[in-house]
Amino acid sequence: MRCRVCKGPIVIELRQHNAAFCEEHFLRFCRDQTARSIKKFDMFGTDDRILVAVSGGKDSLALWDILLDLGYTADGLVLGLGIGEYSESSTEFARTFARDRDATLHEINLQESYRFDVPTAARETGRVPCSACGLSKRHLFDKTALELGYDVVVTGHNLDDEAAVLFGNTIRWKDDYLARQAPVLPARAGFPRKAKPLVRLGEREMAAYCLLRGIDYIVEECPMAEGNKHLEYKALLNELERTSPGAKMQFYFGFLDRAARHFEPEDAVEHLISACVRCGSPANGEVCSFCRLAERAAPVVLLPTRSGRDS
Amino acid sequence: MRCRVCKGPIVIELRQHNAAFCEEHFLRFCRDQTARSIKKFDMFGTDDRILVAVSGGKDSLALWDILLDLGYTADGLVLGLGIGEYSESSTEFARTFARDRDATLHEINLQESYRFDVPTAARETGRVPCSACGLSKRHLFDKTALELGYDVVVTGHNLDDEAAVLFGNTIRWKDDYLARQAPVLPARAGFPRKAKPLVRLGEREMAAYCLLRGIDYIVEECPMAEGNKHLEYKALLNELERTSPGAKMQFYFGFLDRAARHFEPEDAVEHLISACVRCGSPANGEVCSFCRLAERAAPVVLLPTRSGRDS
Repeated sequence: MRCRVCKGPIVIELRQHNAAFCEEHFLRFCRDQTARSIKKFDMFGTDDRILVAVSGGKDSLALWDILLDLGYTADGLVLGLGIGEYSESSTEFARTFARDRDATLHEINLQESYRFDVPTAARETGRVPCSACGLSKRHLFDKTALELGYDVVVTGHNLDDEAAVLFGNTIRWKDDYLARQAPVLPARAGFPRKAKPLVRLGEREMAAYCLLRGIDYIVEECPMAEGNKHLEYKALLNELERTSPGAKMQFYFGFLDRAARHFEPEDAVEHLISACVRCGSPANGEVCSFCRLAERAAPVVLLPTRSGRDS
Repeated sequence: MRCRVCKGPIVIELRQHNAAFCEEHFLRFCRDQTARSIKKFDMFGTDDRILVAVSGGKDSLALWDILLDLGYTADGLVLGLGIGEYSESSTEFARTFARDRDATLHEINLQESYRFDVPTAARETGRVPCSACGLSKRHLFDKTALELGYDVVVTGHNLDDEAAVLFGNTIRWKDDYLARQAPVLPARAGFPRKAKPLVRLGEREMAAYCLLRGIDYIVEECPMAEGNKHLEYKALLNELERTSPGAKMQFYFGFLDRAARHFEPEDAVEHLISACVRCGSPANGEVCSFCRLAERAAPVVLLPTRSGRDS
């Protein structure tokens, strides 16, 4: 096989596109596919200030790299989640990338700022770790974006991620989740706009992109994610893709084209959401989920601090 | 584990129901689950004359057996499809069952009545065998039911079958097929009512049922079905069921409960269907798909016959 564009020697074959590319044209392909998603789903424009949710993995670093190359104004935010060595390495990869590209990286360390970490939160609240972690990440990315005046938060969710989430929601027909499965979510009271520009690219492409661009990233899966259903769904979809190349794209984009509209809620009335009395973020009750999590995960430490402040 | 009903020793554990049964109560369970589907989906009543589409496999023979035990008037129809030894054995199992139960079995042999068989039809028309076979079966079951005055055609499709078909249609978001994925289809011009009373029971249960009831059936998969996507989807769903017992039921019945209505066509106007000029069955053009298939699969033999009839 030869490069689809220049007929030169190839570095990668993409069966789902029935194509192969040389290094130069594969990198261009990744940028083009990202630009296509940004445009098609009207994610953001060149005037927007973008906050990249950086994990230190291949997807978020590749996304940040592509956005900078496409000429967007994109800063990063990395969270110290306190998952031992894994979190430390992840943060270090993010710092190295930012330094190399002369880009702005914000950092929030959960332990330093909130006196708990993901393993403690999971243990103390009985939540599965991925749930405590996801809640913390959503809260901190949203809050930081709004406080620092970013127009949109972008995440590195790729086609494999999105297809696996869609698969999990479809196999159980979770109509309320299916209603929110979109590559861009508009801003609403207390929440910034959110977008996933990598939805046309898979894990394999993102790993190849980082390799070719010399971007170092954390290769390991998070040690707390073991047994996660999400990983099982990915494996099933990979099996399907192996015998039917393009199956994942067909599943995900077929849903967006032909099924997503069916699951939109009939009344588009927003739920009444109040501001959390602790942090001001959107909350269903008095206190938002994140502050409730923090309170349960670090109660002993928080109590003296508060009484100290009162005195 | 002990039998859920009588606490006696068990013959089978059903993880998806979090239950286990002794022989007597497992057989009763199969009958109850079938009766429950018949009632819930209003499939047919005790006054209806039922035609069972019999393949000689475990599902159709178990279904026939259960319907007779439940007191329904149910005759069988088996087709000689001409797939060598496989078809001959299948027919023989059907005959043995009918003889043992003193039930009425109709037979149609494709070669004798139409001068072609499934392998020839597939080869001559370039269709995959399962497509030529499915078309022939639907045509002959429908036609026979209408000609002999049956109220409903029932098939042995079980939960594994239906979940796999749903999976294939969902993974590609075939909205037109999703609209027709129901356990009962009402009669319409030229088509009898059709029902699938085994949708609450899986392959494993049907095999156990036949074993315990002493019903001999053809165990092999059809030799022409190899590489069939349907079998691949079944394997993926089995993998899912292994780690999440009940996943198949959740997927299939969740669809019927919460998603099926979204895919119903907005205008319920029936397409104008004419009567086939050859056989009188519903047709989209002058000649129905089955007669077109027959014409291509056995042209040399058919032509002299027609000119002979004209003279």
